[in-house]
Amino acid sequence: MIKVGIVGASGYTGVELTRLLVNHPKVDLVVATSRQYAGQKLADVYPNLRGITDIVCEDVVLAELVDKADLFFTAVPHQTAMNIVPAFLEAGKKVVDLSADFRIDDATVYEEWYQTHIAKEYLEEAVYGLPELNRGAITKARLIANPGCYPTSIILGLAPLLREGIIDPQTIIADSKSGTSGAGRGAKQATLYCEVTDGFKAYGVGNHRHTPEIEQEISKLAGSGVKISFTPHLVPMVRGILSTVYGSLIKEVSQVEVDELYLDFYKDEPFVRPCSPGSFPATQFVRGSNYCDIGTKVDLRTGRIVIVSAIDNLVKGAAGQAVQNMNLVLGLEEGLGLSVVPLFP
Amino acid sequence: MIKVGIVGASGYTGVELTRLLVNHPKVDLVVATSRQYAGQKLADVYPNLRGITDIVCEDVVLAELVDKADLFFTAVPHQTAMNIVPAFLEAGKKVVDLSADFRIDDATVYEEWYQTHIAKEYLEEAVYGLPELNRGAITKARLIANPGCYPTSIILGLAPLLREGIIDPQTIIADSKSGTSGAGRGAKQATLYCEVTDGFKAYGVGNHRHTPEIEQEISKLAGSGVKISFTPHLVPMVRGILSTVYGSLIKEVSQVEVDELYLDFYKDEPFVRPCSPGSFPATQFVRGSNYCDIGTKVDLRTGRIVIVSAIDNLVKGAAGQAVQNMNLVLGLEEGLGLSVVPLFP
Amino acid sequence: MIKVGIVGASGYTGVELTRLLVNHPKVDLVVATSRQYAGQKLADVYPNLRGITDIVCEDVVLAELVDKADLFFTAVPHQTAMNIVPAFLEAGKKVVDLSADFRIDDATVYEEWYQTHIAKEYLEEAVYGLPELNRGAITKARLIANPGCYPTSIILGLAPLLREGIIDPQTIIADSKSGTSGAGRGAKQATLYCEVTDGFKAYGVGNHRHTPEIEQEISKLAGSGVKISFTPHLVPMVRGILSTVYGSLIKEVSQVEVDELYLDFYKDEPFVRPCSPGSFPATQFVRGSNYCDIGTKVDLRTGRIVIVSAIDNLVKGAAGQAVQNMNLVLGLEEGLGLSVVPLFP
Amino acid sequence: MIKVGIVGASGYTGVELTRLLVNHPKVDLVVATSRQYAGQKLADVYPNLRGITDIVCEDVVLAELVDKADLFFTAVPHQTAMNIVPAFLEAGKKVVDLSADFRIDDATVYEEWYQTHIAKEYLEEAVYGLPELNRGAITKARLIANPGCYPTSIILGLAPLLREGIIDPQTIIADSKSGTSGAGRGAKQATLYCEVTDGFKAYGVGNHRHTPEIEQEISKLAGSGVKISFTPHLVPMVRGILSTVYGSLIKEVSQVEVDELYLDFYKDEPFVRPCSPGSFPATQFVRGSNYCDIGTKVDLRTGRIVIVSAIDNLVKGAAGQAVQNMNLVLGLEEGLGLSVVPLFP
Repeated sequence: MIKVGIVGASGYTGVELTRLLVNHPKVDLVVATSRQYAGQKLADVYPNLRGITDIVCEDVVLAELVDKADLFFTAVPHQTAMNIVPAFLEAGKKVVDLSADFRIDDATVYEEWYQTHIAKEYLEEAVYGLPELNRGAITKARLIANPGCYPTSIILGLAPLLREGIIDPQTIIADSKSGTSGAGRGAKQATLYCEVTDGFKAYGVGNHRHTPEIEQEISKLAGSGVKISFTPHLVPMVRGILSTVYGSLIKEVSQVEVDELYLDFYKDEPFVRPCSPGSFPATQFVRGSNYCDIGTKVDLRTGRIVIVSAIDNLVKGAAGQAVQNMNLVLGLEEGLGLSVVPLFP
Repeated sequence: MIKVGIVGASGYTGVELTRLLVNHPKVDLVVATSRQYAGQKLADVYPNLRGITDIVCEDVVLAELVDKADLFFTAVPHQTAMNIVPAFLEAGKKVVDLSADFRIDDATVYEEWYQTHIAKEYLEEAVYGLPELNRGAITKARLIANPGCYPTSIILGLAPLLREGIIDPQTIIADSKSGTSGAGRGAKQATLYCEVTDGFKAYGVGNHRHTPEIEQEISKLAGSGVKISFTPHLVPMVRGILSTVYGSLIKEVSQVEVDELYLDFYKDEPFVRPCSPGSFPATQFVRGSNYCDIGTKVDLRTGRIVIVSAIDNLVKGAAGQAVQNMNLVLGLEEGLGLSVVPLFP
Repeated sequence: MIKVGIVGASGYTGVELTRLLVNHPKVDLVVATSRQYAGQKLADVYPNLRGITDIVCEDVVLAELVDKADLFFTAVPHQTAMNIVPAFLEAGKKVVDLSADFRIDDATVYEEWYQTHIAKEYLEEAVYGLPELNRGAITKARLIANPGCYPTSIILGLAPLLREGIIDPQTIIADSKSGTSGAGRGAKQATLYCEVTDGFKAYGVGNHRHTPEIEQEISKLAGSGVKISFTPHLVPMVRGILSTVYGSLIKEVSQVEVDELYLDFYKDEPFVRPCSPGSFPATQFVRGSNYCDIGTKVDLRTGRIVIVSAIDNLVKGAAGQAVQNMNLVLGLEEGLGLSVVPLFP
Repeated sequence: MIKVGIVGASGYTGVELTRLLVNHPKVDLVVATSRQYAGQKLADVYPNLRGITDIVCEDVVLAELVDKADLFFTAVPHQTAMNIVPAFLEAGKKVVDLSADFRIDDATVYEEWYQTHIAKEYLEEAVYGLPELNRGAITKARLIANPGCYPTSIILGLAPLLREGIIDPQTIIADSKSGTSGAGRGAKQATLYCEVTDGFKAYGVGNHRHTPEIEQEISKLAGSGVKISFTPHLVPMVRGILSTVYGSLIKEVSQVEVDELYLDFYKDEPFVRPCSPGSFPATQFVRGSNYCDIGTKVDLRTGRIVIVSAIDNLVKGAAGQAVQNMNLVLGLEEGLGLSVVPLFP
């Protein structure tokens, strides 16, 4: 068994990693850190884990941590990640970083949207961990920048069209909707039950930090620099992101051709499910799983195509994709530990 | 007191009309029809009304109905409305029709998106009941076509920009999200609690019937024929529509100018509340009320503007706007019966 | 117009008082305090109030406050209330206190369940503000102890049976379920959306602080000291308390007799609605209103009766009942400002 | 691989069985019947199953069905079950019946609460499938009556106390709360999203059909005939039952002794998790899993004990327990296919 650790185990992403790793046949979860709950059993912090794992949260003491496992998931906020990731790499460990710190190739862009970067020397080798587009590089990497939740849903939705040059990349508008778990377990008025339930709102309009990450990857697919409009929204649900993406057609295509394109593009992908022709995804049908479901509508009336994609933000949008990346990095079968049937109803 | 009646009182829109009318100081609700519940007290069908109204549902017998009130709300499905509205008009009554049957000026367009129209002779005189844009005509009308819920949110959001020629009308994309009450009280698997909650999906992608209604009114504002992309979504909440609308800027404007434009455009409107600069609406803050809240973001990076508008689909999107129209038609103060404070939390 | 003020206006109870008072025909809301938001418009803290009130939150400076209004609502936590209520009374003002500080007649009991009481001299004159049982005393009082939300639902449910000696008071078990708004707007992990939604739990089992309050009032009705079992639960909803109360029958009664008893007992009460025979209340049918709905089941098989009562915890369980008490204290018509139709759906 | 079939695969219980069986290492799901969806892929009826199973729903033709598998789950309504179960038994197959038809030993009692029984000859051999109390008999049975959801939560909560004679069985009151999935996928007004969400109600007060089943099993534990009060409630959530059960103490016990009793009673049970002393269960921490979590409170003030137990109604309350029973019946390891970590958040 390969030893793995989670730095930042008591956040929603951390506990989701734990859920997936405790049933993984080839790895052992041996480290779970949490400054807040150091010394407590993770199962006392998350009672769903009682009887499943006895792991005790430990404080983050890097010098001690680095030797305890072969691969580390860093499930901490951006800026925190850049402070700890180098230590693991220098100790010869592999890292799947779930923060934004190593996703942006260009430090200048990163610093425009986030803050000063103090570990720029690792940006070049960091591999953007979207296996469907980047599998080869991931397999060889030691530092994986696990993609953001919104970018995962948008990029997977757009990739076939951009590769085939079917839409004008300068016309892309991505209107995304996320469940509330994306906001984390920290106590904030804005994410109280009574503030979120039975309501709907946009946030970060025109300035959400996932924008440059999406633009970077879409530009690679389009072969040129692209600016997109991206608006995230908060849905009164726990899990799930649904992105509705619009683009203007620049090639004549039929719905049938587009349906075939998606089937073909993703034919070997275990975790992307193009919808049946005429149907569209819903987040409740990917709940708890690593799937990304995608449907499309060629609208000749307006000359646009609409792409709708759905993921579980905590799984394909975070912990599940991280495990998928871990499997690739460790040379394991890519789907190990991820055969979770979506929970519906 | 002026006598009014509701045809179709046992649907969600009907009971919402009842909620508003029982506290209205100048009208008496004297008729409530329901084929399904004829002979039963409306308060037995909707226990929230116990102790508030003793009105008994009656079957729809047009010959008897027409004489019972001075103004009728027809809260019935499209196609049903066109079969009953003429009888009220011919009897000299005023009608606020909440269906789609008299919203589309052009019968050909109506028949493309709906079905055969059997009362085309009333299309010309029917007035589209959006008071903020059409107050004068409404005041003189005898047949009001009460706007659809999605169109209300989108048109009010766009009107100032289109009037001022700030955006290119051919670039408009309206991504809308609605609570589940819009689907009505009929028993359907798709709107069961377990199917809707903790989930999010798009529906009617590229072919929702509110599209031609939006395009008709937007074309009037733009002064030319416009086609838009419109995608509705289902939110796990009861009430509320939030529309996120995108358009490309064709005039140089600043955020400050746009903020001022909205404040000015709606300065005398009792039910439109432009948000404070930099903030955006949320459906929970209009819940139960007749308000439409609007926020905007000028995004010079992409050359687009994003407009976010929120209404309660059952109030400003249906029953509240109908009461507002009734007040205008009857020569009453426009806001009577509508001073409901949004229910939050 | 009579001037009234709210001390603690930025909590959920405070904003609910505001919602009711801004439409009240005989009083003016002239003071709203909030330490946290002093200097800000209440409508910026609660955007639902935009366009409805321009009141600005002020800090709590007792010496200045006391002269600004004729009656004050103190919507602050227990222990805070006892520190400020005396100042208002000494200045000759009337007070409706929504905390627990003046509800318990016996300071010893209070101190067992809460903490030291520093204003015991006001306990005797404080009137327990349940108008249905205490109207006369309320009318003459200057200090009203507004009842707790759980006690309101349980006491109104039990009163007819206890007055008639139909059940053994020593067998009472009250199993109550509350919406999450009862936990307030403070940022706490336990009331985050993701922690509460799609879940259900008990809390305060055997030791909730509303227990002595319920026992005190039930003992008065029973004419002897009573101990009850009371278990509150947290429901994934915003508003509403439903209490299911059990007691052993000590008189032979039929369902018909019990139905008549409740109808008769509450026949002049504007805000208590006994359910139709055979039906039971649901919180969604009292949402936003001051009603208490009650249903009963005489179960001869077990020799018990089951009483089910429902209120909106923020209205009849707090702000609405406070306004009802204010009306009585000020000699106004009891229902003024409270003719809100329950919002359903 | 052992072949198993599901009769009634398109209900919520059927699809939940499918979710568990497709990952089971020792059985193959080879039959899924659905009258309504015969000929359609189950994955088209439940899109969460796309890419996971290609099984096609077939009509119920008993003569053909019986030979297709070795064990059948009958996930059909009561009364339907008694019409099909005998055919499987007569063909030498094993049956786990999820209906109520074979749960009640005494046909007279069954017929009082349900309707005429037409397969009484199988009542005696049917084994009540609660493994924690009945493991030996289950292992040897060919017909398992899978327990009801409410009874499972209540009986497991009470068993230790009744076995030890700690409470008076005649004082038991079980107040239960269930998620909406228990009402099934049939289209009914009462379970529409807008009727259920943000609301709470009791139903079946004093006459729910699970009452005789609970009384039968509790009477066995108590060693005498017991009548209980049982009130189910509907919670605005999908999954989960929480039962709050009250009983009067007839032995002097401390909290510590009761805590130890539960730990000891369930020490070898893989799916019962007594809570840590002083803590209580919540349904969100068993979501999607086969666990039953139990907490208790000895309340010397009232002389009662309160037991709170939580299960996922679709898993331990239905499909999970059925798989557990299947494992026992087939001589497999009891927990196979059930190592699902509860999904939280």
